[in-house]
Amino acid sequence: MSLFERLKADAGPQWSDYTRHEFVQQLGAGTLPLSCFKHYLVQDYLFLIQFARAYALGVYKSPSVADMRQSLDGVKAILDDELDLHVEMCRSWGMERDMIEEAPEDTPTMAYTRFVLDAGMAGDLLDLQAALAPCVIGYAEIGARLAAEGCDTDGNPYARWIREYASEGYQELAKGFIAWLDGTAGQTLTEHRYPRVLSIFEKACRLESDFWQMGLNAQD
Amino acid sequence: MSLFERLKADAGPQWSDYTRHEFVQQLGAGTLPLSCFKHYLVQDYLFLIQFARAYALGVYKSPSVADMRQSLDGVKAILDDELDLHVEMCRSWGMERDMIEEAPEDTPTMAYTRFVLDAGMAGDLLDLQAALAPCVIGYAEIGARLAAEGCDTDGNPYARWIREYASEGYQELAKGFIAWLDGTAGQTLTEHRYPRVLSIFEKACRLESDFWQMGLNAQD
Amino acid sequence: MSLFERLKADAGPQWSDYTRHEFVQQLGAGTLPLSCFKHYLVQDYLFLIQFARAYALGVYKSPSVADMRQSLDGVKAILDDELDLHVEMCRSWGMERDMIEEAPEDTPTMAYTRFVLDAGMAGDLLDLQAALAPCVIGYAEIGARLAAEGCDTDGNPYARWIREYASEGYQELAKGFIAWLDGTAGQTLTEHRYPRVLSIFEKACRLESDFWQMGLNAQD
Amino acid sequence: MSLFERLKADAGPQWSDYTRHEFVQQLGAGTLPLSCFKHYLVQDYLFLIQFARAYALGVYKSPSVADMRQSLDGVKAILDDELDLHVEMCRSWGMERDMIEEAPEDTPTMAYTRFVLDAGMAGDLLDLQAALAPCVIGYAEIGARLAAEGCDTDGNPYARWIREYASEGYQELAKGFIAWLDGTAGQTLTEHRYPRVLSIFEKACRLESDFWQMGLNAQD
Repeated sequence: MSLFERLKADAGPQWSDYTRHEFVQQLGAGTLPLSCFKHYLVQDYLFLIQFARAYALGVYKSPSVADMRQSLDGVKAILDDELDLHVEMCRSWGMERDMIEEAPEDTPTMAYTRFVLDAGMAGDLLDLQAALAPCVIGYAEIGARLAAEGCDTDGNPYARWIREYASEGYQELAKGFIAWLDGTAGQTLTEHRYPRVLSIFEKACRLESDFWQMGLNAQD
Repeated sequence: MSLFERLKADAGPQWSDYTRHEFVQQLGAGTLPLSCFKHYLVQDYLFLIQFARAYALGVYKSPSVADMRQSLDGVKAILDDELDLHVEMCRSWGMERDMIEEAPEDTPTMAYTRFVLDAGMAGDLLDLQAALAPCVIGYAEIGARLAAEGCDTDGNPYARWIREYASEGYQELAKGFIAWLDGTAGQTLTEHRYPRVLSIFEKACRLESDFWQMGLNAQD
Repeated sequence: MSLFERLKADAGPQWSDYTRHEFVQQLGAGTLPLSCFKHYLVQDYLFLIQFARAYALGVYKSPSVADMRQSLDGVKAILDDELDLHVEMCRSWGMERDMIEEAPEDTPTMAYTRFVLDAGMAGDLLDLQAALAPCVIGYAEIGARLAAEGCDTDGNPYARWIREYASEGYQELAKGFIAWLDGTAGQTLTEHRYPRVLSIFEKACRLESDFWQMGLNAQD
Repeated sequence: MSLFERLKADAGPQWSDYTRHEFVQQLGAGTLPLSCFKHYLVQDYLFLIQFARAYALGVYKSPSVADMRQSLDGVKAILDDELDLHVEMCRSWGMERDMIEEAPEDTPTMAYTRFVLDAGMAGDLLDLQAALAPCVIGYAEIGARLAAEGCDTDGNPYARWIREYASEGYQELAKGFIAWLDGTAGQTLTEHRYPRVLSIFEKACRLESDFWQMGLNAQD
């Protein structure tokens, strides 16, 4: 069993709460209030900036050039592509770049991102990966499930979001992350250490749920 | 005007929301539900462990031996004294050490502490101090005010808490911190940089308010 | 006067010792023993890996997305291009990738790179830039001078090295770095702080000289 | 076999080069030129300041309060005691505090200390401990051996140094460090990871040898 499969099984309730959060269900059904989605999207932009810092930390913490390159791909994906995509998506919902960049970070945004950064700085690459995993892999699982359930129809105002994370490109990225995580675990994970890694993973899942909840709370 | 006075003035609403939060008012009036206080106290224990890490980071980041010693005092205060005091205070309210140490960290606890740690790691000593300041100095201001208002009478179940932070020892510690912060600012603060330092301070105030609110939300 | 010009003037002897080191003079004259150059080249490969980590640290430490992108360019330049160029250059002198990657780091290599990483982690972005500056900018100055002196003739076995650093591409990169450094200084440098920044710059120059000397000492 | 015993065995030549370095032998025989010892002592003072930062990093990186306290002991030992002892020892050889604090750091001093700090920051607590180990434990072994060989007689001008590290207090401190290292290894060491930990230990031994050599090179 891969480390990811084991973490997901042992953090079953937290994983389920996160990946099947009411925000996700309403997004899939197309019933999510637009104000909730817009609030989420802006916070997700601020979130991504911190995630780029976390991947950069991965480059700093990598014990090999191959690991450095894997982390670098994460930084590039965000700084070279995703931020612009987000701005574009925001614009299609009527929000300008300034509004996004000057929005204050909500507590759940700070909580999750700074937790990842600190877990990674205090520990080693495996700790950082465990903290990043729920976001990277969870979004792929959510996207794939919603697409499989047929939620990405043109009638759903959030179809584009679903298609993005259900896309082959994103699915491959998540698979690559799982392989990278498992590779690191194969080198550095011990049974004594496992509970600590699980704790990081569980906390990150919980902080993801809080992030969705922040979106849901933004109903006008 | 000292940097602290300036920050407090410019972050007026955030400082006021934090230091006069409903949790604080009810604590002063003795009307705070015990369940709220107990929840706060346990989370504050977990908070202190992270704050000891933040002061240790201060030792690492200090540009002089004098700064290292100042930061070290913060680590010692927590690891040598405050944690035990907290356990003792918790015990007087019927909570055992195990209950405290095994309690899961709430989101607001993680948000504030990891924000401080990351702001300090990403920036320099001044950034770290600006992130620590609301906690260290705010508690002194709250304690002094509640004591001045006569809230620390024996009839108030939270009198001990108020006396602790109104005590000469704690007031001196906070004054020392203000002097240390101002000393660092005198060396490294520019007007261009000030908005960033203010932003760190404001966020930390906001995260303190969220921390009180977490306590208030824990009403049975 | 730009910060770089000021640093270079105030660290005059260290800058001169570094940029006009005997290793450099012999390289320009084409009289440098091949064993010295090969030793240098292998250590420079190991050096670059650590410099990629330092630029990644710059992404982590950047206060704005624009700064993050500037730092990211440094990481990309090394991991996407320079390492391969180095391997190719080494191969043209008969060294295989394995020989390079498995070579032990010499003390001067560790001294310079770890000094940069620690100065950057302990301080803020300006401290990191000041530690990186002698390498980035010094190589451009050395390359331009040697080319201007006509050292990059086909008769010089080290002409390719000189042309690389005299090239318009590298000269532009160095100019961009100076502008970036000055931009950060414009926001965060105070007169009180200047001596600390100068000290970082001077130490980095000295550690560069030690790095050249390591090459010179490798004469068969 | 404890991790330390294993590391010492596998890094046999590096350990022997370090603990039986010519500087150490001459110090034991009392024939070490005073200029060498004085140069070493001043650099060791600057070294200790960085080691206090490294132990503080240990507090930051500790996964438990018990580990935090163990690291804190290291910070306290240096900042509360050893620095003053060093100044006093220097004074007995005619060097004033100013001379010591304003002395420039030599390359080997920077190399070793910044290597430790970066290895610890990039990795986890075990990596930091492996980097610290040669210094903490090696000095105890050297002190004990020289004392057992009768080198700490009153006729030896360096007897005080030998007695300090042969003392029961220091021997206990080193034993405590070994136990702490082994405790961490018991939780987080895997066979796949062992070569990386060994590499850190070997490099640290080599950098210790370079540190002794720096002293030896300071002969008038």
